[in-house]
Amino acid sequence: MKLKPDTTRERLIDAAMELFHAQGYGATGVAQILKKADCNSGSLYYCFPTKEDLLLAVLEKYKVMLHPVLLEPIWSRLSDPIEKIFGLLDGYRQMLMATNCAYGCPIGNLALELAHTHPNAAKLITENFHGWRDAVKKCLEDAGGRFPDDLDRKQLASFVLTVMEGGVMQARAEKSLVPFDAAVTQLRDYFDRLLSDGTQWGSSATPATSPSRDIGQEFND
Amino acid sequence: MKLKPDTTRERLIDAAMELFHAQGYGATGVAQILKKADCNSGSLYYCFPTKEDLLLAVLEKYKVMLHPVLLEPIWSRLSDPIEKIFGLLDGYRQMLMATNCAYGCPIGNLALELAHTHPNAAKLITENFHGWRDAVKKCLEDAGGRFPDDLDRKQLASFVLTVMEGGVMQARAEKSLVPFDAAVTQLRDYFDRLLSDGTQWGSSATPATSPSRDIGQEFND
Repeated sequence: MKLKPDTTRERLIDAAMELFHAQGYGATGVAQILKKADCNSGSLYYCFPTKEDLLLAVLEKYKVMLHPVLLEPIWSRLSDPIEKIFGLLDGYRQMLMATNCAYGCPIGNLALELAHTHPNAAKLITENFHGWRDAVKKCLEDAGGRFPDDLDRKQLASFVLTVMEGGVMQARAEKSLVPFDAAVTQLRDYFDRLLSDGTQWGSSATPATSPSRDIGQEFND
Repeated sequence: MKLKPDTTRERLIDAAMELFHAQGYGATGVAQILKKADCNSGSLYYCFPTKEDLLLAVLEKYKVMLHPVLLEPIWSRLSDPIEKIFGLLDGYRQMLMATNCAYGCPIGNLALELAHTHPNAAKLITENFHGWRDAVKKCLEDAGGRFPDDLDRKQLASFVLTVMEGGVMQARAEKSLVPFDAAVTQLRDYFDRLLSDGTQWGSSATPATSPSRDIGQEFND
């Protein structure tokens, strides 16, 4: 009795997630969602009485997906906590590159579209941002004394999110990786300067070269 | 003969500019624009055969407004080129504060909404971004040897734009100045570290305290 409704519900959430990301919430019609999910409208309204209910389910699913879908595939390959942060940023670069800079951060897009008109969605968007920030903060904490003692790790983690969101926005606007790469290169320079001011040095320091450092490219118009 | 059409045209552009900023391009209807501009539809279609023509005129006007409307009112009060950059960021903070974080950067919003569906608008959005970045780059050049010799000033200026856009987006999403302030505080720390590594020192160094430094506040959820 339980399997079928759950499956339909999941299909609807997945279809809406993809469509909202590709074209935005307002531009996505119920008919498109039904077609993509291969559902009838009765099932939709049974699971989600309103379109906003479906949006909230999508935003809840993004929260659940953060660690297993976004972070773990990248972080399981990296042991250095600082490289984990730059590996995560490189994950967004890969997504931009694979989609000709069309797909960036789904949460950021929904944030700009909905934050001031859909307060329940805004709350979940903020929770998604905070989940991302707190995962980065954990990396900064794991780096321990490699950073200056007085570094506010929560604030720096929020800054990493700022740089990711701003960089993705510019890349999408300009249809170019150049502004995203410029931002990550400057962020790396900032991290290097923070690390050179750390209280601990020795074997656990960031290696001088690592794969995710090779993102720089010539910065022209 | 010329004055009247020009005035109507300007009224239409100003009305559209305000409405696109407040609610987005797609959500703004022709009737709203006509009402706000106090025009009839004949005048509208005479000046702008399509809604996109009006959008392009709005984006052209933002380019023209950059120096006299956005930068000069702030920069005429500041002589230090680095304080000009942080004064500009503080201008966005003032706008967020005055609007309960509803109004951020109009170009950023239009970028996310339109960049991948309206190529002519995307070109003008990029030109707006580059105009902003180049104005900041000029400040960084004016700071001369206070920065390290090998600093890529164009890349750092692009990074300042990234931080502004990402910070404004987070502030709007969370309806809070906290993530914007966190981003500017970290950017200031990065600038301080770059300046401490500059090749020139002495009387022209950034003062230890300045009004636009006082943006920090406790950083809690």
